[in-house]
Formats: sequence, structure tokens, C-alpha cells
Amino acid sequence: MEGKETVGVWLVGARGTISSAVICGLELLKRGAIAKTGLFTETLVGVSHNFVEYSEIVVGGCDLIESDTRSGVRSLVQQNILPWQHAELLSTIEWKADDNIVTLDKRCFSNGSFNKTLQHTISLIRGHIAHFKATYRLDRVIVVDCSSTSPVFTFTEIAAGLSTWSQLDDYFSNSFDDVSHSLLYAASAFNEGCAYINFTPNVASEIPALKELAVIKGIPHAGKDGKTGETLVKSVLAPLFLHRNLEVMSWQGYNMLGNADGKSLSDPRAKESKISSKSQSLTSILPHDDKLHANVSIDYVPSLGDWKVAWDFVHFKGFFDTAMSMDFTWRGCDTALAAPLVIDLVRLVDLDWRKGKDGVLKHLAAFFKSPTDFSCHDFHQQMQYLHNYLRSY
Amino acid sequence: MEGKETVGVWLVGARGTISSAVICGLELLKRGAIAKTGLFTETLVGVSHNFVEYSEIVVGGCDLIESDTRSGVRSLVQQNILPWQHAELLSTIEWKADDNIVTLDKRCFSNGSFNKTLQHTISLIRGHIAHFKATYRLDRVIVVDCSSTSPVFTFTEIAAGLSTWSQLDDYFSNSFDDVSHSLLYAASAFNEGCAYINFTPNVASEIPALKELAVIKGIPHAGKDGKTGETLVKSVLAPLFLHRNLEVMSWQGYNMLGNADGKSLSDPRAKESKISSKSQSLTSILPHDDKLHANVSIDYVPSLGDWKVAWDFVHFKGFFDTAMSMDFTWRGCDTALAAPLVIDLVRLVDLDWRKGKDGVLKHLAAFFKSPTDFSCHDFHQQMQYLHNYLRSY
Amino acid sequence: MEGKETVGVWLVGARGTISSAVICGLELLKRGAIAKTGLFTETLVGVSHNFVEYSEIVVGGCDLIESDTRSGVRSLVQQNILPWQHAELLSTIEWKADDNIVTLDKRCFSNGSFNKTLQHTISLIRGHIAHFKATYRLDRVIVVDCSSTSPVFTFTEIAAGLSTWSQLDDYFSNSFDDVSHSLLYAASAFNEGCAYINFTPNVASEIPALKELAVIKGIPHAGKDGKTGETLVKSVLAPLFLHRNLEVMSWQGYNMLGNADGKSLSDPRAKESKISSKSQSLTSILPHDDKLHANVSIDYVPSLGDWKVAWDFVHFKGFFDTAMSMDFTWRGCDTALAAPLVIDLVRLVDLDWRKGKDGVLKHLAAFFKSPTDFSCHDFHQQMQYLHNYLRSY
Amino acid sequence: MEGKETVGVWLVGARGTISSAVICGLELLKRGAIAKTGLFTETLVGVSHNFVEYSEIVVGGCDLIESDTRSGVRSLVQQNILPWQHAELLSTIEWKADDNIVTLDKRCFSNGSFNKTLQHTISLIRGHIAHFKATYRLDRVIVVDCSSTSPVFTFTEIAAGLSTWSQLDDYFSNSFDDVSHSLLYAASAFNEGCAYINFTPNVASEIPALKELAVIKGIPHAGKDGKTGETLVKSVLAPLFLHRNLEVMSWQGYNMLGNADGKSLSDPRAKESKISSKSQSLTSILPHDDKLHANVSIDYVPSLGDWKVAWDFVHFKGFFDTAMSMDFTWRGCDTALAAPLVIDLVRLVDLDWRKGKDGVLKHLAAFFKSPTDFSCHDFHQQMQYLHNYLRSY
Repeated sequence: MEGKETVGVWLVGARGTISSAVICGLELLKRGAIAKTGLFTETLVGVSHNFVEYSEIVVGGCDLIESDTRSGVRSLVQQNILPWQHAELLSTIEWKADDNIVTLDKRCFSNGSFNKTLQHTISLIRGHIAHFKATYRLDRVIVVDCSSTSPVFTFTEIAAGLSTWSQLDDYFSNSFDDVSHSLLYAASAFNEGCAYINFTPNVASEIPALKELAVIKGIPHAGKDGKTGETLVKSVLAPLFLHRNLEVMSWQGYNMLGNADGKSLSDPRAKESKISSKSQSLTSILPHDDKLHANVSIDYVPSLGDWKVAWDFVHFKGFFDTAMSMDFTWRGCDTALAAPLVIDLVRLVDLDWRKGKDGVLKHLAAFFKSPTDFSCHDFHQQMQYLHNYLRSY
Repeated sequence: MEGKETVGVWLVGARGTISSAVICGLELLKRGAIAKTGLFTETLVGVSHNFVEYSEIVVGGCDLIESDTRSGVRSLVQQNILPWQHAELLSTIEWKADDNIVTLDKRCFSNGSFNKTLQHTISLIRGHIAHFKATYRLDRVIVVDCSSTSPVFTFTEIAAGLSTWSQLDDYFSNSFDDVSHSLLYAASAFNEGCAYINFTPNVASEIPALKELAVIKGIPHAGKDGKTGETLVKSVLAPLFLHRNLEVMSWQGYNMLGNADGKSLSDPRAKESKISSKSQSLTSILPHDDKLHANVSIDYVPSLGDWKVAWDFVHFKGFFDTAMSMDFTWRGCDTALAAPLVIDLVRLVDLDWRKGKDGVLKHLAAFFKSPTDFSCHDFHQQMQYLHNYLRSY
Repeated sequence: MEGKETVGVWLVGARGTISSAVICGLELLKRGAIAKTGLFTETLVGVSHNFVEYSEIVVGGCDLIESDTRSGVRSLVQQNILPWQHAELLSTIEWKADDNIVTLDKRCFSNGSFNKTLQHTISLIRGHIAHFKATYRLDRVIVVDCSSTSPVFTFTEIAAGLSTWSQLDDYFSNSFDDVSHSLLYAASAFNEGCAYINFTPNVASEIPALKELAVIKGIPHAGKDGKTGETLVKSVLAPLFLHRNLEVMSWQGYNMLGNADGKSLSDPRAKESKISSKSQSLTSILPHDDKLHANVSIDYVPSLGDWKVAWDFVHFKGFFDTAMSMDFTWRGCDTALAAPLVIDLVRLVDLDWRKGKDGVLKHLAAFFKSPTDFSCHDFHQQMQYLHNYLRSY
Repeated sequence: MEGKETVGVWLVGARGTISSAVICGLELLKRGAIAKTGLFTETLVGVSHNFVEYSEIVVGGCDLIESDTRSGVRSLVQQNILPWQHAELLSTIEWKADDNIVTLDKRCFSNGSFNKTLQHTISLIRGHIAHFKATYRLDRVIVVDCSSTSPVFTFTEIAAGLSTWSQLDDYFSNSFDDVSHSLLYAASAFNEGCAYINFTPNVASEIPALKELAVIKGIPHAGKDGKTGETLVKSVLAPLFLHRNLEVMSWQGYNMLGNADGKSLSDPRAKESKISSKSQSLTSILPHDDKLHANVSIDYVPSLGDWKVAWDFVHFKGFFDTAMSMDFTWRGCDTALAAPLVIDLVRLVDLDWRKGKDGVLKHLAAFFKSPTDFSCHDFHQQMQYLHNYLRSY
């Protein structure tokens, strides 16, 4: 680490499966023990982009749950995410990350009953980030939010009225409301001079007041809601119908999943938040008139664990109004799909930051279900935009 | 038609279902009786491209089978391609196309037993085209080859040695070989000053000698093998795996169809020709090393009639080498997908011809399974190339 | 009809698609214009069971909607249920059934606002049945209830307290409640000396008070909820897992349909009634402990019309607790599956009635999603029971 | 083992995955370390059938490949058949089975080039079985044939002429032919006084001469070809169409598998043998006239390993000849499905043997794709026959 710059990654939800997979993955990559499958940044072969090396990344973070990396590894193996062969190697590692992961008191987020303002919670989070930054003398820290899906809080409406950072800051100082946790993480990150990546569907850095703060501080950020499975396939397939002028009459998407993310969706408000994020893709690509009947549902099916099984049915019309259909089944491991995206995003945001970019990094739209400030959901157009951007460096 | 230019479309295989659907479709479009669903050229709204109007197209053609349009309509309805509502309207029409469709003697293509050279067959076809052109005083005639899939003839090797038009012309004058019929149609078209579109997987205008002839004559052409169903979906989906650096281990495609096209595939040599065309898409998009196990099969299932049912299974690896899979089922009406592409191709080729283009129209790659002189099979890149081309006018 | 006995079929919901298909189907069967596909009773070849001939059946009925058979035929053709070839033949028929189908005033079933007791509605229905019977001098009339799915009324609880016919009769004389319409149809049928078949999931002849009445009157009845599609497949497949001692962890069933039945399910209470009926099959076949996660959902997808598309996912454990899965897709035409069952049930109930049977005909369980007084939902055991019963005649 | 009778199981193909799973499974069952999922005999709760206990079974066998159980366990874990949790427990076991498994010289089966008669090979095999029997003083030894699929040898025709045991015995003494290995294993078993279970599709104990020998020796046997996956589902589903009088027009079955069994199918003659066994089920259940188009294919897809993925498409007609369809996807672990069937068969054959039964045990038809001397392939009827048989004890 001598002489070389080091990048800090501060994971929110650091004890969740995605974070565990990021931590294990980085360790295995450093040792050359796994292939680079799933990592977009590794496809840029010959394009010398000077991405941060896996060995130059230091991981820290926070969670509401107390645990350790060893348990995380075990859980990954039990769910068939991490092949058991790697478990042996990982069991011999001394996990330094454990020193950098703090357990937050759940009461931090029940501000009303705790009788503390939101500002108080922000200060608390900022303290932990600052400590991490100082300990490792990190030049840049990127906060990656991998926390659970929050309910769609009524705050969304409040936020609409708080269009400047100073207004929002005031609100934080006086309010005891129940708000999206991610909002507080994003505010903490920016105030502490850290970049922020929102991998969740929660309200966070995309609101005007926080976008303003990011620009003031000269910090880049990106979001939101990692595009890993069914929505990804949708955003690849839907343009086909558009290009061929085939009229999609109905698109029904049924998702089943059994992990903590699935469990959190048993809260109908969280479900609404997730479904709303998943639905955008389709209706933004296809002509969204009265004729399109598009639905997406998510069911919690515990036996699936971290495996997401989705079935989508597309009913469309061709020439002579002949009705045809296609359907697809997706059987993906959410964590194995999400973890490399997190690593890619860290490398891409870090590169931009070093190049002096700030504000919303729109060219990262291809990574998200609800890309901030980017209305196009067509995956291929998103990828082309990204490639053009990277080529222009 | 007074003052206005008129475009002739000369359909090879004019009694087949695709041609019948093109003939009925044009008639219904002229009368505004059907929606413009399935027609790409209709998506270019606001882009005044001056495409030929449906009412300005005169249809003629040839077939080895004697029939009439009325029977074609009935067959389309019986196979649920054309909704019965339209049958009534169509039954009241007097079909002028019937006057322009000639029945070729099957012996034209058994030159050996018939003791006639290939040149003789070409002269015969040219005579029919010339008559059609003269009758309607057509400025431009576009020959669209919708004939059945031919076997992979050994001619392919012979053709390799006949790299100039004069060599091929000599060969035609002296040979009694069993060659791809489409080769003779393409040669006839060019010699008669007509553009040529190859909607079949047969060897035709893509061979060097005929490409040379097209340029000598200043004529545009495009091909080959209309991309309508499973291959289309493949060329849309496969790039997803590439972009996300997911390693496709196996891609198995199973196609079932019950129409004349399916029946012709009972000849193993015809099957080989079709499968080879269908396979290119995948192996050209994905890294084609020893690791990729890609297979495509076609089965004749009579009960399906013109409906193609295809099931594709994709087995891929993600991060940690975790194996995942997706599969899709496609239930499309081949004819209802192909017919509007033929009409689109006629309009696009005609536009280019008027603008003075000749030779291979590479920008039409998105319409074909085996695009001539265009190595990229990624549908989205093909569409983007096409849009850029059209925008540049 | 001279000398021969004639059977009357009085269809409730006579203007719905199932009834229309029954009416058209009987007419086509009489004329030998269609194959006997879909009719169970036709498989009993060589077993001389003396079923009523199609030509000996007279159809009447009622509906809340005014229409005629000609419109019914048109609608069947438009939805691709009845192939257009038959439409021509049917258009030449003079529909006598139209004379026997009465339109009921919708207010009959809003007894509260109408200020009429339930008994009044029953009298009204009885009058119509009696008139039909008298007009054709029918020995036996079978009322077949093909009406829409009703909400799960709170009456279910009331009915529990009304365990004898005299109690229920009293209730009818004094109540203005909003009850399942099918309850009133069943009571009307029995009081008028007619057999009753409940093809709907509505509360009707299976309640103790009505079962008592049927026995008093010496009348057979059967129900409830015709088993046509996804539930049928479930009741065939689920025993496989039981027999092989494979532990089903999750069974998720997703149904999509676009007909009137689907529309009526937009009333959440009607949906509950239907789903509860569909769920029984699985939980009664498989060991229903805490481990089984079974769910079934129904969505209204208008573009599908009368076509039901269902996708079921089964997640199960084998030896070594290895998790495996299967899924199936069902694409059936509900009406084309239901109509022959109605005709079969009429023939089977009629046969039993002539043999002197009364009360619940349990051996008809294989036809129903929620068979009255028959706890076994395994389709194969149900069929075996039926065959044994018929053999014992 | 003192006083208690002990049963010997002599596995042919003892180093294959099925045998390895049987060996590990028995060990885990003895220790109560796994659930009894997948074992039919365990569903006979309360029916005191006195099946042999898992701890009373001694395993031996032979293979052409030299290996040990430890490698077998590793391979099961690598293919995700045996969850890694069990691997640890199994790694502590000292595998006595290894002492009882002999490696046969491959030349035993190339009798021509080896210049040894078939009788010589039989003697060799008999010697190994006799040694195993003597070592453990076993009362009963059951030979279970789990070897690879053999090609369809022309022997089938020879065997037809050798209808008595003495004729076949003569043939063995004089011939150097290339015959189905299983034929020699079956002959060896019977001659050595052992029962024989044919889990392969190979020609063996079902030929008349060997059936005669089994009766002479008073020994029971059963076969052939374990019914584990797609064929099992077919034999459950097909009767549905029969019972409802729905006309199946086409049934296409596509199988993909990646294990040694799949690899052996690259020999087209072996493939023919397997496909012929798989096809019987359907054509014996459904009316097999010119109308039924039934096809089954098997492809070797290495990435799947021991996982079998099958897709079946059923196209059928209902009332009004309306065409409908269903399809299913099966994702099963062949070994985890087969191993408990082997254990079940050992227990069932042993029970019958003790009860004095000999010859073909027809009531075990439900376990096989090509049940010997049992023409009914309907799984439910087979299970009912089995249950009736067991009840009659």
C-alpha cells in the first residue's frame, strides 16, 4: 500500500449476503482464486482505464445486525452461492474487514421513540465513516448502500418541498420522522466527502436537495436499484418488440425469491417500493398507452433461498393483428449477480472521481433498475452510452 | 398511377404462405383495413423517407405449383394466420396478381434429366420478369426470393472457383448441374436489371461472381434468410451475457414447425442449410471457444401448421462460477412475422435504389439470419447501424 | 321425440360462453359435424350405458343479460373457441333454444333494495323452470349452474346454523340478505323436482339443508366448480410426489385469464372464493404441514380472452435433501374444456337419476375442483372410483 | 449382525454415480444423518412389511474402472448431488465396501479379441459373487445392474432363437460375440443363486431363456430401466388426456444431460437403446394411431453434469377440435432420484424372495421405463397394482 493510493469501500448492510459476497469476492480475486466472470470492467481488455486494483480496496461498513464474515461465508456456501471448494480457502483467512464493520443500534432509526433528531443519526453515521477513513488514511471512500428495501415513506412528498440542501439540512435538524434510512446514509456520505452508490430501491441521493449537496461538495454518485435479473432481461427484450413494431398487449412478470430481500417484501409498503422500481423499465421502453397491460408481482418463497426464479409472459400482436406469445424463465442467484456489479460500480465511480467528475454519473444507467436522471431503460442503448463515455476519456 | 412511379415486386415462391400473406397484406393495407403492426418502416414516423406507398406496388411472380390467390387466402385463414374477419373482405376482391404469377415447369430445375443448360433456365425466368416489367411499364422491379429451403449443394465449392461473373456466366452456359434454384433467380434478376432480396437460406447473390454482376449493373441487393423468430430472440438476448461478462456454457435451441418449410427440412441436406444459417448468430456474438456448447435443432411437427414453437435453454456461469440458467419459449406465426419484413425490405431497397445505391445493402443486416458482408449479429447494433444509415440521408 | 323420453337441460348463465358452447356443441353433435373429442362419456365404448342421446336433449335456461344464440356463436368464433368453419353451418340454424331462455331482472338478486324476500326470487325462478318443463312435457329437467363466480358471502356462516331444510326455508321466507345466487337456483331446482349440477365455485347444494331437501325429494345433484385446467393438471401431478416420497417444499401457481370469469375476479371477494376452491386440490393430496408453501394466484389479462395461461412452479426435495424443480405451462381454452364436461355431467346425472339414485353423486368427483362429500382430490383415484361405479351397474 | 439375516447387494457399475450414491446413502441412513425422502418403502408407514433394515445390508460389486468410495463421495459433492454438509461426515468413515468391489478387466467383454467364450466371462463374474457371498456368509445376494447403457446389439435377434436356457447356455459356451454385458451379469446372478434387478435399458433377464432359468432356480428378478425423470412425468401426465378424451396430436420430448450416461449416448446405438425404452411409455398409454406424432430426443450437454433438464411439449385437441397445448420443464438430479429407487427395489425384491416368490416381479412395474411382462405404463395404475399386491400379503 506504500505510495499507492487506496480506495475505501464502506458497505451499508455489510452483513447482508451481497456485502458478504463482495468481501469474499474481493479476497478471492486478490488471490487469483476465481475467474473474473460477471465483472463488466474486466471486459474492457486493452482499454487501459487504470481501474483500481482489487488489492487496493479496503472494506468497512455498518449493519444493524451483529455478525462476522466467517458466518457470512458459511451462509453463502449453504445457499449454494459460493461453491464449497472456495469455503476451505476462505476459512483460512483472517478477516480484517471485521474490524471495520460497526454494528449500529436499531434505535438510531426510530428517531421518534428514541427522541433524537435525524441530524443526530447522521452525525453518528458520519463518525463511523470518518473513523474508517482516518484509520486507513484513505484518500477516497465510496459508500455503497446495500441495505434492505425500505417502505415507500411519505417523506417522498415532504422531500418534494425541500428542494435545496439548506432546506433539507434544516429538516434533518428538527425532524423525528420515520424516513428512508438510505436518505440518511447518502446525506452522511456527502457531508463526509464520500461518493455514494445506491444499490437499493430506497429514496436517497436522487432527490434535488442531495443532488445539490453532491455538486457543492464535488462528489460523484450513482443509483438506484441494481439491475440484476428479471428486470435486466426485460430491458434487453422489450426493445425487440419496439424495433419490429410488434404491439405488446400484455406483459406479466412473476418473481419468486426466498432471501432476506424477499422477506422484507412481506411489508406491503416495501413491496410497493420494489415493484414500482421494477415496473419502470417496461413502461418506459414500450409505448405506454391504454393498450399495454403490464404487471409485475413478487412472492416470498422461502425454499428458494437466494435463488430468484422469475417467469415472464409476453402477449403480442403482429401483422394481421395475429396474437403470438413468448415467455421466459430466469433462474438466477441474486447475490452472485449483484456482487460483481457492486465491485464494477466501485471501480467506475472511483475512476470518474479521480478524473474530477461530480454529481449524478448518468452513464452508469445500465447498472440500475431506476437510473437517476436517465430516462432510457433500453439496456443496449445504456451500454452503448457507457461505452461511448469510456471511449471519450 | 398517373405520373407516379410504380414499383414491381416479383415474388419467387409466389404461391407459398409468405407470398400469399404479402399479397393479402398489401391489399388490406391499401384499403386501411389492418393496422400497420409488424412494419418497421412505419416506425419512422416524422422521418420523411418517401417510401413507396402500398398502393404504388404491383405484384407478380412465379411458383412451381399452380394455384390462385383465393386458395392462398383460404389456407391463411385455416392456419389461423389471417383472422377470419378479413377473409370476408378479401373474398370480394378480384385478384389481379393472379394474372402476373406464372407457373414454372418443375423440369426447369432438373437440368440434367431435361438436357437443358442452366443458362436455358435463366433465359426462361428472365422472359417472365421482362414480360411483367413491360406489361406494367415498371421503372423498377424487385425480385424477392421466398422459395423453399434448398439443400446445401456441392455447388458452394464450385462457386468458390468461379469468382468473376464471366466465369459464372460461362459455367451457366455449359452446366447441367443441380444447383440452388435461388442462384438462378438472382442471376436472372440482375441480368434483367432487377434488384434482388434473398429471404431464403439458399446460396444466391452473396457469392463473389454475382456481387460483381450487381455492381456492374448498378443494382442493389440484400440477404439472406429472414430473421423472424427464435434466431431473432437469440440475437437480442445473447449480447446480454456478453455485456455482463457472464460465461455461456451451453445454449440449446429446439425448434418445432409444421408448415411446408418444416416439411422441406425432412431432406437432411436442406436441414443442414437452415441450421447452419441459424447457428451463426450465436457463435458470432458470444466468444466461440471450446467452452461454448451451442446446438440448434429443427423438428417437423405437422400439427403446428405455420406456428413455430421454439424452446431455448441457456446455461451460464456468473461470479464464483455459480451456474445459473434461463430458458424461453417462443410461439410465433412465421408467416405473420415474415410478411411485413418482406414489405419493409421492398420499401427500403427501393428507397436506396432511387438514391443510387448498388451492391450489397449491408445496413439491412437486422432483417437477416445470415447478413451478407456484415459480421455483427447483435440485433441492437444492427438496428443502430440501420438507424444511423437512414438518418444520414 | 315420439315415445322417446326427453331430457331438459336448464342452464343458469345461459348467455355465458360455456352455455353458448354447450348449445352449439349439442347442435353440432346431433348433426355429426364435430368429433366427440373432450367427451368422457364417449370413451365408454362397448360399455352399453344407455346415456341420453344428444338429439334427445332440450335446452332452456336463464341469464341476467339479454342476448341471443347468434351473438353467442359470433363471440365464440371471435375468441378462437369455435373454428370459423363451423360458424357457417351454425349461421343457418334456427335456434329454438332462444325461445326457452328467459332474461331475469337483475333486481331479483338485490332483495334488500328491491324489498322482496329470497323466497320471492325462488318462486320467480321456479316459475320459469316449471314453464319450460310443461312446454316440452319433460320427464326430467337438470339445472346446470354455469353462472359467474359469486363473492364468498357471509351467508356461509349463517348457513352453518341452518342445518335443516325447514330452517333454511324459513330463512328464505324472511330474509332480504345478499346471498350466493347459486343457493337460490339450487333451492329452486330441488323444489321444482329438478336435478342440479353446480359448475361454479359458489355456495349451493352442498350445504346440509339443501342436501336434506334433495334426499327428501329423491333427486340427485353434483358439484362443485368444474375442474378444467390448471387445477386438473395439479390433481394429476401432485400424487407423483407423494408416491415417490419426494417432499414438495413450494408449489406456486399463477393463472392468467381474460374472459368474463376473469373480470368477475376483480371483485376481491369473488377472487377469494375461486382461489379457495383451487387451493384445496393440492393441500388435500400432499402432506399439508408447515413445510408446504402452496400459493395460487389469478390475474385478469384481457388480451387472453377465453384462453387461460397458467404457470406452475414446483420446488421439491429428493434423496440427500437435494432440491429439484419442475414447472409447467398450460394454455387451454376454458370454454372448450368446460362445455363437454357439462354435457358429460348431464348424461351421467341423468343415467343415475333413471337408476333411482338421489343425493350427492360422489362418484362424479373427478369433474370438480371442490367435490361435495369426497375428500380425495387425486384425479386418478377419482377416475378409478368413477369407473368402478359405472362398472358396478 | 448376530442372529440377524444379512442381505448382500452386489452392484454392477459399482463406481458409477448411482452406486456411489447408494453406498453413501445407506451409510447416512444407518446413522440417521439424512431424511428418508425419496424412499417409497418408507411411505408404507403402519404397514408392517418387515423390510430389511439399512444396517443389515452389505454392499459389494464390480466395475471396469478402478476407483474408491472416497473419490465417489467427492464427485457427488462436486456435482451438487450430495450437499457438502454430508461430505464431512462421510470423510470420517472407513469404507468397508471398497474391500468388496472388484475391478474387472475390460477385456472380459471383448471376448472375440480376447479369444475367450462368453461362458468364461460368466465364470469369472460368478467367482466374484461367490467370494462375496462366502466372505459375509450371506443368505441372499441381490445383483443390481447399474452399468452404462449398452448399444442395441444384434444379439437381440440371436436371443429370439434361443428360447430355452439350455440353448442359451450352449450359446454362451461356444460364442465369442459382442453381447450386452447385462446379459452376462444376469446369467451369472441366476446361476449363482442371486436375485437380479436390471436398472439399465440393456437386454438382460427379460429374455425367455433367462426367465426360464430364474424359475428353475426359484429366484425373483425385476426390470428394466429405472423410471426417474421425464419418462416418469410422462407416465403420470399422459393418462390425463386419455381420461378426458383429449386428442394428443404431438408430444415432443427433449432431454439434456451431462453425465457419463449422457456421454455414453454419443454412441448412436446406445442412444437408440435408450430412446426406444423412453418412447414406450407414451405410445402404450395414448391411442397410438397415425394421428399421434410422438418424439423423444436426448442431447449430451456437458455443463449440466448429473442434472437432467427436459422439456416436453404436448399439443392436443379438445371440443370443437380446438388446439391447445401444455409444456413442462423438469430439472432433476438423476442420481438423487435413482439411488433411493435402487434401495427400495432391494428391499422389495428381498421381501418377495423371503416370501418364496420367483420369476418376474411384475408388481414392480412402477419403478421401470420398460417393465418386464407388464404392458401398462400408466404410473397411477402401476402404483395401485403395487399397493394392492403389498396389501394382499
